[in-house]
Amino acid sequence: MTDGPTTRIACSDADSVTIRGENLVDDLIGKKTFTEMVYFLTRGRHPSPTETAILDACLVTLMEHGFTPAALVTRITADSVPDQVQVAMAAGLLTVGSVFVGTMEGCAAILARGIEAPDAEAFCAGIARDYLSAKRPLPGFGHPFHKPDDPRTPRLFAVAEAAGAEGRYIRLLKMLSAAVDREAGRHLTINATGAIAALLLEIDFPADVMRAVAVISRCGGLAGHIIEERETRSARTIWALTEANIPYDGPPLSRE
Amino acid sequence: MTDGPTTRIACSDADSVTIRGENLVDDLIGKKTFTEMVYFLTRGRHPSPTETAILDACLVTLMEHGFTPAALVTRITADSVPDQVQVAMAAGLLTVGSVFVGTMEGCAAILARGIEAPDAEAFCAGIARDYLSAKRPLPGFGHPFHKPDDPRTPRLFAVAEAAGAEGRYIRLLKMLSAAVDREAGRHLTINATGAIAALLLEIDFPADVMRAVAVISRCGGLAGHIIEERETRSARTIWALTEANIPYDGPPLSRE
Amino acid sequence: MTDGPTTRIACSDADSVTIRGENLVDDLIGKKTFTEMVYFLTRGRHPSPTETAILDACLVTLMEHGFTPAALVTRITADSVPDQVQVAMAAGLLTVGSVFVGTMEGCAAILARGIEAPDAEAFCAGIARDYLSAKRPLPGFGHPFHKPDDPRTPRLFAVAEAAGAEGRYIRLLKMLSAAVDREAGRHLTINATGAIAALLLEIDFPADVMRAVAVISRCGGLAGHIIEERETRSARTIWALTEANIPYDGPPLSRE
Amino acid sequence: MTDGPTTRIACSDADSVTIRGENLVDDLIGKKTFTEMVYFLTRGRHPSPTETAILDACLVTLMEHGFTPAALVTRITADSVPDQVQVAMAAGLLTVGSVFVGTMEGCAAILARGIEAPDAEAFCAGIARDYLSAKRPLPGFGHPFHKPDDPRTPRLFAVAEAAGAEGRYIRLLKMLSAAVDREAGRHLTINATGAIAALLLEIDFPADVMRAVAVISRCGGLAGHIIEERETRSARTIWALTEANIPYDGPPLSRE
Repeated sequence: MTDGPTTRIACSDADSVTIRGENLVDDLIGKKTFTEMVYFLTRGRHPSPTETAILDACLVTLMEHGFTPAALVTRITADSVPDQVQVAMAAGLLTVGSVFVGTMEGCAAILARGIEAPDAEAFCAGIARDYLSAKRPLPGFGHPFHKPDDPRTPRLFAVAEAAGAEGRYIRLLKMLSAAVDREAGRHLTINATGAIAALLLEIDFPADVMRAVAVISRCGGLAGHIIEERETRSARTIWALTEANIPYDGPPLSRE
Repeated sequence: MTDGPTTRIACSDADSVTIRGENLVDDLIGKKTFTEMVYFLTRGRHPSPTETAILDACLVTLMEHGFTPAALVTRITADSVPDQVQVAMAAGLLTVGSVFVGTMEGCAAILARGIEAPDAEAFCAGIARDYLSAKRPLPGFGHPFHKPDDPRTPRLFAVAEAAGAEGRYIRLLKMLSAAVDREAGRHLTINATGAIAALLLEIDFPADVMRAVAVISRCGGLAGHIIEERETRSARTIWALTEANIPYDGPPLSRE
Repeated sequence: MTDGPTTRIACSDADSVTIRGENLVDDLIGKKTFTEMVYFLTRGRHPSPTETAILDACLVTLMEHGFTPAALVTRITADSVPDQVQVAMAAGLLTVGSVFVGTMEGCAAILARGIEAPDAEAFCAGIARDYLSAKRPLPGFGHPFHKPDDPRTPRLFAVAEAAGAEGRYIRLLKMLSAAVDREAGRHLTINATGAIAALLLEIDFPADVMRAVAVISRCGGLAGHIIEERETRSARTIWALTEANIPYDGPPLSRE
Repeated sequence: MTDGPTTRIACSDADSVTIRGENLVDDLIGKKTFTEMVYFLTRGRHPSPTETAILDACLVTLMEHGFTPAALVTRITADSVPDQVQVAMAAGLLTVGSVFVGTMEGCAAILARGIEAPDAEAFCAGIARDYLSAKRPLPGFGHPFHKPDDPRTPRLFAVAEAAGAEGRYIRLLKMLSAAVDREAGRHLTINATGAIAALLLEIDFPADVMRAVAVISRCGGLAGHIIEERETRSARTIWALTEANIPYDGPPLSRE
């Protein structure tokens, strides 16, 4: 297998587990936090305190937002498959897709292009014009509930600044926001997934798997919903509400 | 809806998100780590430093073990559905079931009963006798690779002690281990999921959703596999190895 | 690999696909129905017309029952991941578990034991007594909506009889039903999954993967929900109904 | 709820289940095949014999192809979660995505545009030129194993013709194939998913949920893999082959 694939992640033998060159038992357990390990496993190097603080802020932001689609799916599945916690959690995580969280990846892709552009102002004006004239939703902007401003966004920027982020992706996103407001003639909020896209780029997190941060974050929130579901059985109420409020209006029974 | 279910987890309005009585923006983002939030969301109260240290050690322990079933499934799915990171991660998490990680819940259930037993020594002797005489695998004991001892177990106990754990579940597990060795006439290791069961009981984590800790932990590890998979395409090698080594020996084609 | 596993299911080369000894192109496409193929692939032999008719009846019975948990989960997931039909379908199928359909497997296990019992009447009386005295739900009996009788059950029995089933599992289930009614002092319906357990045993379908028939059946029904969801956006209504009717009553915000 | 969503699929009361205006018990069980029901539930009307024959041929074609990614994932998951058949099946179905089967939807989209084009020849030439000059894979064309021709394709066309299909989508696909060969200067096969796209358009199956046919089909094949897996434990072999052939070449342990 001289030319075949290899792995740089982990190996183990009877008395040790090696993870990216470190001994799980001696170097990692009890010495690293989960957040530090997420960075280590995805980037292949240990994060700086700045990077850890920013990743923690991003992970904390997306954990919980009440009855999200992920929470609904997890609760209904937990009611149907009560003994397999991982099934309810995985089912919920399947919803962390392009509609509600994936805008993170779209926004990151725009910022990653913009940072290379010779004229950032012109780049931002062009993006704003292209999306708004085509009436396409611009990834990272707008929010159905949090209007006029998503309260998480300025907090995330402040945390990144306080933690020592260099800040060039955040500045670019703010520049884009100003261009969007000018083009639209009104204010559109930078939403939390837009802000997180900028923060994760600040800490060198790869744009094309950025959604993984949302998955890990949301995964941490779903356990609480399963625990509560066992007490409240909300899935049965959701089911009953659906049947009561979304009536059948198909063809009537032709006989019997 | 006077008698209907309610939720104690979260609510939001246009300019705030409330999570278990705290303001996400003011109280949590930038102030809490992901691990502290996992505890807060599942237990409804903030963890002590002892509890955070123990939960972090448990989460770090199960994140990564190379080509586990979860990693295999995630890599094959990522190869088939490359643009939806959450699908590959959720698929892998479905494997975190009763065979490889769920022994955590079985071991926790035994320890939770034992801590209430009037005579702990007699309880442990009885459990050891019942399982070994019936040749049933005892949850939390034994490991296919890590023999004679799982190296993670003593480290987890040491971390818990250093962090200030009270220690009664750990002592009970050690007592059970001694009873098992006496009954078996040889040494069986306490494995990492057994040790984690004891540690999580120390920090008051509910036994019946304990598997959620493994799911969150493993979720944090799978992102790294997806990133590597994009470079190495190991899924194609796994597929080819399977076809080359597991031949068809069904009925031959009867014609043509 | 002399001692390693093999497969008896399929192999292929550049110009043919062999499935259990038959040529997919020449022998199966255009000559067999999907239902016949399900039997062929699981049992390794082609079904008789009796077996096909019974399997079709079982598959048709469980396809659709309106807003089931599977349909709810599929619709919510389709709304979140609109471009990946398989993700919404798979998410829904995860709910086909022990609560709503798995009773099929439990009932089949009882019938499989009973058919071997020296005294079927005594066996049935014993099962009825054991479950009812312990107040345990008896797999295959009772239904939350379809009272006093599940209308699908007599129809399934009639279809099996008309198709030429031997009938011994059906007779055993009816004997068990009589014993249950005597023990309970009132009538409990044999539900559709109980009847299907008997029918699938009649056609020699393995008891321990019987739930697969429910999964295939329900899979066939979910496509229609995805199509309708794209027009009606019921997921958004379900979400709004949940938020409006399951209020937050956790701790109030202490500051802000 | 005057303006809210409704459903045209199903409703039920204590003694009946209505499905698109028909009585499940009286009109469907024992009278319709599973394949006929798939059409009925997705299209809202009963299929003609032509439509049933074509849908059956499409469903049979994609059920089984040996160790596909779906089969690998289902087997590994079944080994990890042995008691929940639906979990292993759903995990496998998640892989039925854009890489291996979704080309069906891409090909159908092209054919649906082409059928409306004023000049079909010019349309086909344009498509062939656009894709080949951009070196983009053309959905429905090419196959890694089945070269020079996918043997399923002519069979599917023949079945459709024999069943009485009108044939305009099939003719268009053949016209596109000729244009592709001219543009490429060599022969590229129409693969099975391309042929199925044409056949499903012939029977008026909606292009944007066409992948659902592949999901249902593959679902029917996975049960057989789970049954075989319980005997052969191929997952353990796949795991061992992976570890033996994809070695760790990350950083060496620096200490211990």
